[in-house]
Amino acid sequence: MLIKNARFVLTPEKTLENKNIVVKDSRIESIGGCDKSEEVIDASNHIVLPGLVNMHTHASMNLLRGVSDDKKLQKWLQEDIWPLEEKLDGEKCYWGAMHAFTEMIKTGTTCFSDMYFFMDKVAEAAEDIGIRGYLGHGMLDLGEEQRRKKDLKKSRKIVKDIGKLSDRINPMVTPHSCETCSDELLLKAREMADRNDIPLHMHLCETHDEVEKLIKERGRRPVEHIKQLGLLDGKFIGAHGVHLTVEDIKTLSKKEASIVHNPCSNMKLTSGVAPVPDMMQKGLNVCLGTDGAASNNNLDMFEEMKFVGLLHKLNASDPTTMPIEDISKLPWTNADMALDRKIGRLEQGYTADLILVDLDYIKMNPVHSPLSNLIYSGAEVDTTIIDGEIVMRNGELTMVDENKIKRKAGEFAEELVSCPHSED
Amino acid sequence: MLIKNARFVLTPEKTLENKNIVVKDSRIESIGGCDKSEEVIDASNHIVLPGLVNMHTHASMNLLRGVSDDKKLQKWLQEDIWPLEEKLDGEKCYWGAMHAFTEMIKTGTTCFSDMYFFMDKVAEAAEDIGIRGYLGHGMLDLGEEQRRKKDLKKSRKIVKDIGKLSDRINPMVTPHSCETCSDELLLKAREMADRNDIPLHMHLCETHDEVEKLIKERGRRPVEHIKQLGLLDGKFIGAHGVHLTVEDIKTLSKKEASIVHNPCSNMKLTSGVAPVPDMMQKGLNVCLGTDGAASNNNLDMFEEMKFVGLLHKLNASDPTTMPIEDISKLPWTNADMALDRKIGRLEQGYTADLILVDLDYIKMNPVHSPLSNLIYSGAEVDTTIIDGEIVMRNGELTMVDENKIKRKAGEFAEELVSCPHSED
Repeated sequence: MLIKNARFVLTPEKTLENKNIVVKDSRIESIGGCDKSEEVIDASNHIVLPGLVNMHTHASMNLLRGVSDDKKLQKWLQEDIWPLEEKLDGEKCYWGAMHAFTEMIKTGTTCFSDMYFFMDKVAEAAEDIGIRGYLGHGMLDLGEEQRRKKDLKKSRKIVKDIGKLSDRINPMVTPHSCETCSDELLLKAREMADRNDIPLHMHLCETHDEVEKLIKERGRRPVEHIKQLGLLDGKFIGAHGVHLTVEDIKTLSKKEASIVHNPCSNMKLTSGVAPVPDMMQKGLNVCLGTDGAASNNNLDMFEEMKFVGLLHKLNASDPTTMPIEDISKLPWTNADMALDRKIGRLEQGYTADLILVDLDYIKMNPVHSPLSNLIYSGAEVDTTIIDGEIVMRNGELTMVDENKIKRKAGEFAEELVSCPHSED
Repeated sequence: MLIKNARFVLTPEKTLENKNIVVKDSRIESIGGCDKSEEVIDASNHIVLPGLVNMHTHASMNLLRGVSDDKKLQKWLQEDIWPLEEKLDGEKCYWGAMHAFTEMIKTGTTCFSDMYFFMDKVAEAAEDIGIRGYLGHGMLDLGEEQRRKKDLKKSRKIVKDIGKLSDRINPMVTPHSCETCSDELLLKAREMADRNDIPLHMHLCETHDEVEKLIKERGRRPVEHIKQLGLLDGKFIGAHGVHLTVEDIKTLSKKEASIVHNPCSNMKLTSGVAPVPDMMQKGLNVCLGTDGAASNNNLDMFEEMKFVGLLHKLNASDPTTMPIEDISKLPWTNADMALDRKIGRLEQGYTADLILVDLDYIKMNPVHSPLSNLIYSGAEVDTTIIDGEIVMRNGELTMVDENKIKRKAGEFAEELVSCPHSED
């Protein structure tokens, strides 16, 4: 495939002008070269850049978008989210995830990392629409042996089955958090991740209460706790990291660990402000996620980047904090660091996960700085390519029927508020 | 005009379903009625709602979008913005404003309030594209008599000429701020506003330094200062209001005063967090603005509403702070309170400034709550009607050539970084 004469190419560290990009199979073969491809995409009025990586989300929660807002966290969970989640089933999770992946592809996300329920169906949806994903069954036992066994079994099945689908779909091991998982479950999770050489991804220090509870019950902070258990001895992804101390950051930065920042969710649920500039300064790898649509309420990673910039400037009372060059590390090169998958860069040999952004979009011009416009003003994605395949062209999904997805998701979202309880 | 079978109608206080809206001349004649209009708009897959009112912006600054970010305020102004502003001329301001109005109409804004330079040209642009606007020449004298005279003359000319254009274009008197205007200029500004029965709009308590400087130089805080001068005795609009004390809020709430909140600009330039929930609780009228594109960097009022919600929840450590019902007052009914113009409501007798939002947009569904989706998830505007006239239909501007606007704005934006100095 030849992406011809791209007006701007964001690598993302530098901006090149008027270049061709040659894609062969699923890889970027060259930037600046030429090719007699049958498939030619004219990018003379576009910015071509790596697809965004949403490192923490719960895709199927798109069914719950706007179902409950402006409530305190515990009330929100107990009164609305948990009762609705109990009513989920495989079909609902499939269409919820399909809807989420449609939103992702349309807003430039080419890879996601998701922990939730009915993940076999979520993986199927990802495969059908053509998006790259890392998935795990969200395990929690609340100390109950039976629940632990059941969740470990589900997790093992996901790990075993998911990798078979395609190269794009990758399993993770995903215990929910220190608060909701016994030490035994956490240890088994690490073992499973190591045995399969895949990442362990869990929530970490999202809320103040969660940290205080662990200190009270187990006598130490979450990071110290998982370090002692050996959970950090291997690829580790911690979502949120809002309540990390300087010591926690130091501990994590010495390990093969990444933290996923979710500013919109943390602001909306008032979890707090993650110390992202400190983490980055101390060499801890920070990625970006949207969390689920129930607490954001969208999956737009460009908007999420704007929140990163404005939140941390305000928090530090310093507008030079988190400049665009730092913000742009999160969804691209730092995601590559976390997943080690040759994504997040437009470079020879890297995976051909890339997007074309329309320079004609009113918010995108005038173009004094393409990167500033993308982050602070807003982007409209025209074409999305994943693994060298065009999954959206001129705003139209190529592999699936968008109208059917919206209709199905709408029907199941409505059903959810009245359907009977079902079991995962 | 008949807007037929609207799936949802936001008034904005309540949501109606499956209603017709009849527009006659520039007014809403009925909701729920019928009409044998020639002009019929099918809204069966749309939310119909009042157009948004952007109460503080500098439209022509669209030319400066992304030209400078991530700098401290004084450096940003002195090194980048002021030198570039000196190079502005009437033609540049016309096309910059045209670009801004295009962005506004495409994102659902039907009325703006703007203080800047070459406002005769800005008014001309507003008239050409069909948007409703309140405009004033941004006056500042820094204590110099000659400058004062010059700016008062310009201001008088704008006030005199602008009203002649059309019913949609309205003059304001707009001294820049207490910091940059002598008491004499402020007094003359109030006189001019009173004589013409139009609002006075100025920056107020945007930064900590501005407040401290006034206390040092004139022995009192800005609100006390303008109260003593009599500036609050008449229709008053204060932009930003970040550094207002409880006493300031009490003072303002007893007057015919409104404060315009600009959360993105205040976060990006780290001006601080305006005490919006306190203002609203004390009965002070709060509106919403985007500020200029150089400090935001867009004019999207839906995005601005999301920032309002998330910022104030985080700031109060309480997710029940600024629920969607409160956020939605700012750009609609509170703007009507500030301008007293029968806008911001979908109600019989109100001005027909309204927009149709597409329910098919991926971020807009599923629709558990139309208002939540509009504010927290994101909206795509399909059709914009101002004063009973369709200024955008199915995403296409009707009165002007969007491509020409983008080309012209792009050319002048580029020229701006190299052209010689010119005089307003």
